[in-house]
Amino acid sequence: MAVELSTDTPSKIILLVIDGLGGLPIHGKTALEAAHSPHLDRLAAKSACGLTDPVFPGVTPGSGPAHLSLFGYDPTKYLLGRGILEALGVGVDVGEKDMVARGNFATLKDNLIIDRRAGRIPTSENEKLCQRINDFLKSRKGPKIMVFPGKEHRFVVKFSAEGLYDSLSDADPQKENKPPVYTKPLSPEAQNTATLVNAFLDEVTEFLRNSAPANTILLRGFAKHPSLPSMQELYKLTPAALANYPMYKGLAKLVGMDIIDVGPEIADLFDRVEDIYSDYNFFYIHIKKTDAAGEDGNYEAKKAAIEETDTYIPRLVKLKPDVLVITSDHSTPCSLKAHSWHPNPFLLHSSSAMPDRTTHFSERECSQGYLGRFQAIYVMSLMLAHAGKLKKYGA
Amino acid sequence: MAVELSTDTPSKIILLVIDGLGGLPIHGKTALEAAHSPHLDRLAAKSACGLTDPVFPGVTPGSGPAHLSLFGYDPTKYLLGRGILEALGVGVDVGEKDMVARGNFATLKDNLIIDRRAGRIPTSENEKLCQRINDFLKSRKGPKIMVFPGKEHRFVVKFSAEGLYDSLSDADPQKENKPPVYTKPLSPEAQNTATLVNAFLDEVTEFLRNSAPANTILLRGFAKHPSLPSMQELYKLTPAALANYPMYKGLAKLVGMDIIDVGPEIADLFDRVEDIYSDYNFFYIHIKKTDAAGEDGNYEAKKAAIEETDTYIPRLVKLKPDVLVITSDHSTPCSLKAHSWHPNPFLLHSSSAMPDRTTHFSERECSQGYLGRFQAIYVMSLMLAHAGKLKKYGA
Repeated sequence: MAVELSTDTPSKIILLVIDGLGGLPIHGKTALEAAHSPHLDRLAAKSACGLTDPVFPGVTPGSGPAHLSLFGYDPTKYLLGRGILEALGVGVDVGEKDMVARGNFATLKDNLIIDRRAGRIPTSENEKLCQRINDFLKSRKGPKIMVFPGKEHRFVVKFSAEGLYDSLSDADPQKENKPPVYTKPLSPEAQNTATLVNAFLDEVTEFLRNSAPANTILLRGFAKHPSLPSMQELYKLTPAALANYPMYKGLAKLVGMDIIDVGPEIADLFDRVEDIYSDYNFFYIHIKKTDAAGEDGNYEAKKAAIEETDTYIPRLVKLKPDVLVITSDHSTPCSLKAHSWHPNPFLLHSSSAMPDRTTHFSERECSQGYLGRFQAIYVMSLMLAHAGKLKKYGA
Repeated sequence: MAVELSTDTPSKIILLVIDGLGGLPIHGKTALEAAHSPHLDRLAAKSACGLTDPVFPGVTPGSGPAHLSLFGYDPTKYLLGRGILEALGVGVDVGEKDMVARGNFATLKDNLIIDRRAGRIPTSENEKLCQRINDFLKSRKGPKIMVFPGKEHRFVVKFSAEGLYDSLSDADPQKENKPPVYTKPLSPEAQNTATLVNAFLDEVTEFLRNSAPANTILLRGFAKHPSLPSMQELYKLTPAALANYPMYKGLAKLVGMDIIDVGPEIADLFDRVEDIYSDYNFFYIHIKKTDAAGEDGNYEAKKAAIEETDTYIPRLVKLKPDVLVITSDHSTPCSLKAHSWHPNPFLLHSSSAMPDRTTHFSERECSQGYLGRFQAIYVMSLMLAHAGKLKKYGA
């Protein structure tokens, strides 16, 4: 519905996503509750607060569905293949005709996969192997294929050709001490793609024959570029993304955002948003450190990342956006060391927002906020409305 | 979605349903607010609380949809015929090929139904009539048909045969001083079933010709056994039901729970759950007294039933389930003497639950809880998540 009602205006929206922000108490307080964050608190006191569910109560989302939801895309309708997410994560540029897959270097002996992770070879070794494979692939004929190193034994492969179909089974026996398996087409039109992938598997295994423990590869999660309508089309926005990590740049690119070059630090995000502020009317800013600390179970690091983020809040406020939303994609409690299903703290600052009694930006204070608990998929329509970008529905 | 993501683990969930728990204030306090329930209050203080809507705001559910919702089945998609609920209520075992209907004994005179309830004959008279009819039915040829007495003039009839179809109109003129009506097939394939039902009507009316005022029968709400996917299939649970009343055993059986034999008292439920605790990983416990008191408009009895239930809470806590949820299927305010649409108090206790500021388990305190207000259909995904039984959605 936001689509039919949206209208192009110069008003500006900033969406600050503090990844994995929500948590659970340790010694009575969550990291967000324990953090000294006077600017977030002061803003909360002048804003409408609430809690959002990325998908629905109980569902723990990956970064893909959690972000799609925040961008207003139904995460149960738009599904991103694991290969795509992995590719975005290592910064692979995936075009509309490309197909990607997740790869493992593995160990083959007597026609059995005896180690699916090739002894977790060092990342530096992985990088060298990928370089060698790419040189070899360039030297031979056939469709363009490239590999991109990840951490340890993991890599991403990209096939670039016309007429690729990603309905393919995994070329991975899943368990050790089983023979290698080829990919099989899961629909008739994927037959040629399966043939291409299997020839590639044979070629690379032959090329790696003396590189034990990394003397073969496994491929899984074949995925073509998903076709999502852009935020320009849907909401008539001119959106920009500021993120330090490839995964989030990739997700933003999928929905049509311009990806702004930024350095690796939190400070770089806030420097750059000031530089480009006059060029766009929607700004997605992504902070990763909070989620990384949550995944590590490092409560002090999470608290520190929140406190660091807090120091930059006045710079966002100073830009005087028509709408400033501060929230998260999903929770990452230190006690669980993983993404979780707990709802996200949410703050909306705007001249048309109802200020509530929230005086501290936290999970439990937000649960008492004026906005109550709602699905994150409505964050986009709410931001558009407060920015004066949504027309009346019906007469 | 909970279906694709669910995974089998040994972790245990207890769902305690205090039927009709929610109410409205009388002299300022609801029965739940007035009750002395220190164990529920102490548990609330360490739990995440909220309010749930059985269907959606304003909808008063019957026991069927209210329970389906709590078990994670969309109550607007899975419809239970009234005949089925009536049959479950009197404890009739309905097999997959069986068809049931609600029956009334009625009075026929000069080919007019002059009393649709046969003067509300005593239940004991009803029981005798049903016994006689069953003896008669056994003595003759044809498909197996049985009647089961309810209260006063009400009974349930069960047809057991191959190829029955329940798309049949009611064999009931609905108003008095109208001629009896036969059932009519509402779809072509129900023709044979209609013929069978109408022959049965004729036979029984002939058999009862000297039993005035109960000298004929009316049938309505024809319903076959609904086919619901089981909780084992959907959630990979091993579920057990502990309930004193047939209706709730029947509902639990529809979704695949093992029905545990229990005595008639609240105490019996808590004795038995301890006995079987190692054999299952999901326990549905149903307490009826609160709803019965609400329906009677008996505030003191409702308060007493809550206080009695409260004394057993420590025994549930002592079992150390991974997730303990205490809630209701629907509200039954004494002032309305009926089910209502008011949301249910909800409490979730688990190591991954956010403790909130709720210190008294009540309708109004729960409305301030961290979980906010949500649809009861998400109770199941929330319980599964807190029990570590749901995988992450997407990457």
